Amino acid sequence: MAKDKEAKQQFQLKVPKGTKDWAGTDMIIRDKIFSTITDVFKRHGATTIDTPVFELKEILSGKYGEDSKLIYDLADQGGELCSLRYDLTVPFARWLAMNASVQSIKRYHIAKVYRRDAPAMSKGRMREFYQCDFDIAGTYDPMLPDAEILRITCEIFEGLGWDGKYTIKLNHRKILDGVFEVCGVPKDKLRTISSAVDKLDKAPWDEVRREMTEEKGLDPDVADKIGGYVVRKGGKELLETLKKDEAFVANASAKQGLEDMALLFDYLDVFAVLPRISFDLSLARGLDYYTGVIYEVVTEGSAPSTSEGQKVQQRAKKEGKDKARDADEDGSSDPYVGVGSVAAGGRYDELVGMFSGKAQIPCVGISFGVDRIFSITKARTERAKGAAAVRANEVDVYVMAFGGKGFDGLLKERMEVATTLWDGGIKAEFSYKLKPKLAAQFKSAEAGGVPLAVILGADELAAGQVRVKELGLPDGHADKDGVLVAKARVVDEVRERLGRRQGASAAGVGVGVVEDEVARLSVA
Amino acid sequence: MAKDKEAKQQFQLKVPKGTKDWAGTDMIIRDKIFSTITDVFKRHGATTIDTPVFELKEILSGKYGEDSKLIYDLADQGGELCSLRYDLTVPFARWLAMNASVQSIKRYHIAKVYRRDAPAMSKGRMREFYQCDFDIAGTYDPMLPDAEILRITCEIFEGLGWDGKYTIKLNHRKILDGVFEVCGVPKDKLRTISSAVDKLDKAPWDEVRREMTEEKGLDPDVADKIGGYVVRKGGKELLETLKKDEAFVANASAKQGLEDMALLFDYLDVFAVLPRISFDLSLARGLDYYTGVIYEVVTEGSAPSTSEGQKVQQRAKKEGKDKARDADEDGSSDPYVGVGSVAAGGRYDELVGMFSGKAQIPCVGISFGVDRIFSITKARTERAKGAAAVRANEVDVYVMAFGGKGFDGLLKERMEVATTLWDGGIKAEFSYKLKPKLAAQFKSAEAGGVPLAVILGADELAAGQVRVKELGLPDGHADKDGVLVAKARVVDEVRERLGRRQGASAAGVGVGVVEDEVARLSVA
Repeated sequence: MAKDKEAKQQFQLKVPKGTKDWAGTDMIIRDKIFSTITDVFKRHGATTIDTPVFELKEILSGKYGEDSKLIYDLADQGGELCSLRYDLTVPFARWLAMNASVQSIKRYHIAKVYRRDAPAMSKGRMREFYQCDFDIAGTYDPMLPDAEILRITCEIFEGLGWDGKYTIKLNHRKILDGVFEVCGVPKDKLRTISSAVDKLDKAPWDEVRREMTEEKGLDPDVADKIGGYVVRKGGKELLETLKKDEAFVANASAKQGLEDMALLFDYLDVFAVLPRISFDLSLARGLDYYTGVIYEVVTEGSAPSTSEGQKVQQRAKKEGKDKARDADEDGSSDPYVGVGSVAAGGRYDELVGMFSGKAQIPCVGISFGVDRIFSITKARTERAKGAAAVRANEVDVYVMAFGGKGFDGLLKERMEVATTLWDGGIKAEFSYKLKPKLAAQFKSAEAGGVPLAVILGADELAAGQVRVKELGLPDGHADKDGVLVAKARVVDEVRERLGRRQGASAAGVGVGVVEDEVARLSVA
Repeated sequence: MAKDKEAKQQFQLKVPKGTKDWAGTDMIIRDKIFSTITDVFKRHGATTIDTPVFELKEILSGKYGEDSKLIYDLADQGGELCSLRYDLTVPFARWLAMNASVQSIKRYHIAKVYRRDAPAMSKGRMREFYQCDFDIAGTYDPMLPDAEILRITCEIFEGLGWDGKYTIKLNHRKILDGVFEVCGVPKDKLRTISSAVDKLDKAPWDEVRREMTEEKGLDPDVADKIGGYVVRKGGKELLETLKKDEAFVANASAKQGLEDMALLFDYLDVFAVLPRISFDLSLARGLDYYTGVIYEVVTEGSAPSTSEGQKVQQRAKKEGKDKARDADEDGSSDPYVGVGSVAAGGRYDELVGMFSGKAQIPCVGISFGVDRIFSITKARTERAKGAAAVRANEVDVYVMAFGGKGFDGLLKERMEVATTLWDGGIKAEFSYKLKPKLAAQFKSAEAGGVPLAVILGADELAAGQVRVKELGLPDGHADKDGVLVAKARVVDEVRERLGRRQGASAAGVGVGVVEDEVARLSVA
């Protein structure tokens, strides 16, 4: 201990670069997002698995192409060589390959992943961040799991209160392959042309065309043909148009893709989510392993916004570069609303086979960018109500006491009433002071946004009564002074009043509570 | 990709030594435990914080004595040197020191920690395992937070259905210091004698006395005097006895400790948890940083059990040492019920100062051994009901269809009804087959333990009706065949039936649901 005390203060007190602590209202918002998402997954029969934070190094190697350099390795302290997980998909595929008895599963996994990238909070790029993956593995009749994933996606964003303010961009790898084949893209240029197409959400066609022809040496005629396809987006009617394109339908890959999409559109219609779908021929998605439908969810806030980035830049100029970088790295600038998609995924039928050789298990999945969803939710909440609107805890009742001369604090009485409330499953707190002032107790309760007070006074207690009072009511309100109730009835009274506050939103047991919690946060 | 395919199968598919995947019913049981615990913390106004999985190496160094060799380091890949967290207490103290504006907090943190120990599943020693910490930081009137922590502890074990089958061993560092001073232990032997005393839960006094005198060179008279104190345990009456011991009370440290304990006993009485408390003068706790009350929760299963350990030993002999070690390491033996305590903690008023120099923030906390609690809960559940009793998912309704000749599977109709149920917040599933057989649908539903079926038939649908049927009812039961209800009423009917099944346990909104979930798991 003596040695520790000497060492004290000789190093900077901080978290590692690219990581952050979560606390306070941020933590509350994040937890609500997680519980909303988890709730939807469970509503669809999903279960969760939890894998170790590190995997054997060789499990991860060869899975991420040139990004493999971003993998965090553990030090070689003797024994196996391990690395921190880079995503949740490879551990899932490893788990499926190790558990041959599992031939089908709906699984979700919300956990942190690690990338030794240059951190840039302004772009939402952290070294430790959450992923939230949902995947359906198994051999089923076509497009049914795919459709359910898109339904789940909509339930999640509706549950978060986004109220239709998002779009699911949808495409199919085989349609894209068909486009490239029909237009005459040479086989060796398929990947690079595909990744050029993927930039159409950020750049105009002219720019993408220039990249294809000048940088990547594509025949300008071929590029123009591609352009004729990939700038198109729409709904089911686009599908009909493509079906009438004889040259296109003659391509086997395109034909298969169109059939899949027609079936999918039918199912999405039954699931009542068609209005959220944009069939977008420019969507390509970077990862190699997709084999079927691909999708990406965008929202207002997803478009690259530069205003926050500019603020960081300006601060950099003003305070000197290092200072600004510090501000960025410790998360204090945290302006990472406004970049990229908020969820993305697709079908990958061949990944599990990378581990298990024998058995392929077809999979389709989606990954929710929970850090981005968090930033957008937080920004919307603050814009609408101010940060104070999000409570730092969930206490429903503050038990307090008051008295005149000779007031002894009624500590044990407060403890006893709190015990009664806890026994009734009610969230309750009281002051840890022997003789707290009444004003200080009200201040604590109001600072925490606690909705109800149970107030004890010696005379009332002698009559077997306590006062239950709603906090935050305006002067002159009929219930301003609360009501005296028998001490034995305090749990019932509190439950009734909490029930009334939750009001109409508490439609179903359990669900109502979650909806109410989320309603506190989510704002259009 | 080609390279990956070559590499495939050339290494063993496994998780790193001392880690495991969580899935299936294990995951369900663990999640229920977490939600029960979290629920209690929130009921007491606690909030959670989340810190990075790795910290700067220098934050951890010098905090764990000789156990520091067990810390996992990240590889030096350029930049800061980091280590995986070893516990949740040091990151909490670091966070408090970094956030000077936080002068008080009730915080909980459930997360994995990492120790490069020799893994021994039979002793519950993993390299990656969960800790669940709850701490109250801040300057308050004496013993109030301490008492609330013990109240919370009881609510948690009651919530887990342990129904009084656990004991909180309680002591106070100052009382122990008083004992040692009054008995005449030399200052330089305080630590070592204290750790000898701590063994009294596993060894008889004679053995501990021998260690003190023969190994540690303590004067036998001093040892005997210590023996007169530390073998004593009991409740409030032991406190009264000690108060009458004039020599003891004359010691300043003992006096302070006794005053604290008297106050604490008063508070524990009001909190209605005294019956669970055993004031145990032999409890010493290993960690140096405790400064006040210390406690440890033990249960039936906590006593060191050797039967499982022996099985592992026997297997080791039979199969050769390496094989047995493998069996042990991959978790397949997993018999770690029966070792040590299930929760432990105490007051530590000086730890935060190690980081912040200026401001001390007094703290009191407890850490729940969730992996042990898991093993005990799982063993009890299996003993009582068999593993099948724990459902692998939470689906409430399986939507199915049947029909005679010309049956088209009614896929879209099943999807539509599922959509209606999801919109109503009900957990529902249906077969991903176009034309599933009725028997296969019942089999799926029953395998998942789904309580209700909504059954569609062409004739019933034409009349605007569906059949709602409870699954698993015995032949001859009045409701065996279910009831026909209007399709528009399906959500209401399902809700009613689910509500009835939850029955009397659903006392309060939300709480009832949790209680019911836990009731499925927890068995005396």
